[in-house]
Amino acid sequence: MSTGAELTARADAGLPARLARSAAATESGAWMRTADFTSWLDDRRRAHRFEVTRIPFADLDGWGFQPGTGNLVHRTGRFFTIEGLHIVNRGGPFPDWQQPIIDQPEVGILGIVAREFDGVLHFLMQAKMEPGNPNLLQLSPTVQATRSNYTGAHRGAKVKYIDYFTEPGRCRTLVDTLQSEHGTWFYHKSNRNTIVETREDVPVDEDFCWLTLGQIGELLRRDNVVNMDARTVLSCAPMPYAEPNALHSDVELLSWFSTERSRHEVRIRRLPLAEVSDWERGDTGIEHVPPRYFRVMAVAASGNREVSAWTQPLIEPLKIGLTAFVIRRFGGVPHILMHARVEPGFLDTIELGPTVQCTPDYYTHGYRPAFLDLVLNAPRDRIRYEAVHSEEGGRFFHAQNRSLIVEADESEAPTTPPDGYRWCSLGQISHLLRHGRYVNVQARTLLAVLNTGVVPV
Amino acid sequence: MSTGAELTARADAGLPARLARSAAATESGAWMRTADFTSWLDDRRRAHRFEVTRIPFADLDGWGFQPGTGNLVHRTGRFFTIEGLHIVNRGGPFPDWQQPIIDQPEVGILGIVAREFDGVLHFLMQAKMEPGNPNLLQLSPTVQATRSNYTGAHRGAKVKYIDYFTEPGRCRTLVDTLQSEHGTWFYHKSNRNTIVETREDVPVDEDFCWLTLGQIGELLRRDNVVNMDARTVLSCAPMPYAEPNALHSDVELLSWFSTERSRHEVRIRRLPLAEVSDWERGDTGIEHVPPRYFRVMAVAASGNREVSAWTQPLIEPLKIGLTAFVIRRFGGVPHILMHARVEPGFLDTIELGPTVQCTPDYYTHGYRPAFLDLVLNAPRDRIRYEAVHSEEGGRFFHAQNRSLIVEADESEAPTTPPDGYRWCSLGQISHLLRHGRYVNVQARTLLAVLNTGVVPV
Repeated sequence: MSTGAELTARADAGLPARLARSAAATESGAWMRTADFTSWLDDRRRAHRFEVTRIPFADLDGWGFQPGTGNLVHRTGRFFTIEGLHIVNRGGPFPDWQQPIIDQPEVGILGIVAREFDGVLHFLMQAKMEPGNPNLLQLSPTVQATRSNYTGAHRGAKVKYIDYFTEPGRCRTLVDTLQSEHGTWFYHKSNRNTIVETREDVPVDEDFCWLTLGQIGELLRRDNVVNMDARTVLSCAPMPYAEPNALHSDVELLSWFSTERSRHEVRIRRLPLAEVSDWERGDTGIEHVPPRYFRVMAVAASGNREVSAWTQPLIEPLKIGLTAFVIRRFGGVPHILMHARVEPGFLDTIELGPTVQCTPDYYTHGYRPAFLDLVLNAPRDRIRYEAVHSEEGGRFFHAQNRSLIVEADESEAPTTPPDGYRWCSLGQISHLLRHGRYVNVQARTLLAVLNTGVVPV
Repeated sequence: MSTGAELTARADAGLPARLARSAAATESGAWMRTADFTSWLDDRRRAHRFEVTRIPFADLDGWGFQPGTGNLVHRTGRFFTIEGLHIVNRGGPFPDWQQPIIDQPEVGILGIVAREFDGVLHFLMQAKMEPGNPNLLQLSPTVQATRSNYTGAHRGAKVKYIDYFTEPGRCRTLVDTLQSEHGTWFYHKSNRNTIVETREDVPVDEDFCWLTLGQIGELLRRDNVVNMDARTVLSCAPMPYAEPNALHSDVELLSWFSTERSRHEVRIRRLPLAEVSDWERGDTGIEHVPPRYFRVMAVAASGNREVSAWTQPLIEPLKIGLTAFVIRRFGGVPHILMHARVEPGFLDTIELGPTVQCTPDYYTHGYRPAFLDLVLNAPRDRIRYEAVHSEEGGRFFHAQNRSLIVEADESEAPTTPPDGYRWCSLGQISHLLRHGRYVNVQARTLLAVLNTGVVPV
């Protein structure tokens, strides 16, 4: 019964070293010097007119509140809807609440095309405008498309470079995994995070450029340049974190994860938006009473996206958030203190988030998240990384997080941390990221900073 | 910031070889010869009186139909409920249907305690009676407990050996992963599948015995001896399938899986049981009209379980099912043709099932599942394995599947199979089983046959 069919090596043994080589190229790439990026991006900014204005819900075109449920829906039934959620999490710091949430069941593609120039991997990045970005234009993956986008529900132009991802056999897949999006704002949402390699000569559109991993790392030092979608895709790249040893074995880590996932009794029930308690709908926003957390609002946008002008609802957090990794070396091997978080929109109860993920302004009295003070009070010489980044500008309006990586010691962040926290080596997190629903989007986008080599650990 | 904390090897490099050694011990173990097992099991059967009788729903104690919804619930709100589900799967062979389904949100433990005797791993197995087993008594894991079981909601005796799994640091974890249960009968259910190793002298209760992996393999040749729970736990054991090469690389396989998981547009909506169309409730059963698939029924049971006598609902399929692996060697490496299946109760759209998983009696006219004829008509010399096993006897009544492993060639099962099918090496499936929600319970229980070495591949 044996056949002569040719076998493939199961692991792409050369890839991590190729990624490391690309991460080492920080100053220049085949397409531009890193120092020239800002003027290139400014050029792109000047090349387009793009305006975003807040509008009342009544001015939304194609969107409206469904009679009865009060859900905010598009008349075609596509794109996404804003509905309600009731969360009961006995044992959590907030045991029972209701909130609006985005339901967008389709799986989108966040994809980067890679290609070698002079033996170094480069990534095709896009200067993309999105209505929720505080500075409108940021660096995004080659393709960032909902299924409605690339199947034409927007009635807009064809998504550029989509064929590199959808045509079987055209490219070599380096990474392709379904990862969750924001569990506090999205219901069960996931996107494919994928990197494909081509050997073709790729025609480069004027809004696109080739950058090395190291160049993207340099840009990650700056506030609000590399968008969330680019960061999450890059977090999934299998970097050469080849530590054979860690504080916990892989099986112990997976076992701890199974325990965390099964010990929480979280009951989630979907609600019509009109029935969500503690939230009120006005002409221009759906807000918590008293004002807290976020509001649902609407914008009118025009620019060079797939369609030239449109209106849409967005979610606008009221305050800036904080995401932070606390890191330590054990036996010389860098570890991150990960936190098993319950978020209402997670498909499966928990995922691993950063050490700290919260909006500090809501914790000035009473309950304070673990390690928040450690991170807020960290002396300068312990802060390995700091920047402000924004969340996906297609759904979130000016949603910014201060991102920190802080090195700590045993007295501040003990080897045996509190329940729900666990030290994971970079290799272990990288391994988990080959699979979905282990690591949340906030942790992933911080990990991109480490993957690009901008913070030497 | 470096500390002297001791690191652990991330991988337990010795475990696969130890499992292989245990699988090679087929004739006898430290506790009994395999030839003596039947008389031991018969002894256990004689030691207990156990009776199961069908009863009308009206005779259920503590269970009843909830006013309004018609859901079948326990008065405490615990254990499980039987509700309704509405499935819309555009593009599937059955695009729209409704059905009853079990909702049991708590995560149970299916756990086996392992211990070395004379350098060979043995597994502590239990002769356990369950009301749905056709022969009542089967070989089960050391612990097979819902959370209600081991937290005492049954008001019964303490679950034996549970402390080996719940006391931190008591045992060494060899395997611990959350795996799904039957997607056609359970809504989003998963259980921890775990094996822990002890060095303690374990007091062996009269219903328990130590067996090697090879001995359990020998018992898998027989019909209805090793229960589903034992089979799924053993399928997760990391056997030494160390093929460095396969037909597809691991990344290609994961990418195909991501594509499959995102290409199906399945909409699942929970319904009150009373509203499920095409199903009717009688005094003794809830049945499809005309009779098909399964019925919800009730039994009274008495015996030596955690509580001495009880009544409960069960799901009873009307016909015997078929699960089959089609296998081939490519370049000498054995591969299984896996099928990405949509099942309504899966948490995340699809999981990989066996090549064939169906109830053949329902496909005598019209649509026939792929490879069903190949499996049904396989000549004797191609059948590597055949036995009849039953599904979990605590929820399913006489739910039996004929299990087959059939070797095929290019003309019957091509290297490039139809959409939704993919050849996976044993090492690849074993690797996926370190994580949950990749491989369904039917495929896992067939894989147990390969893991125990009973079918040399």
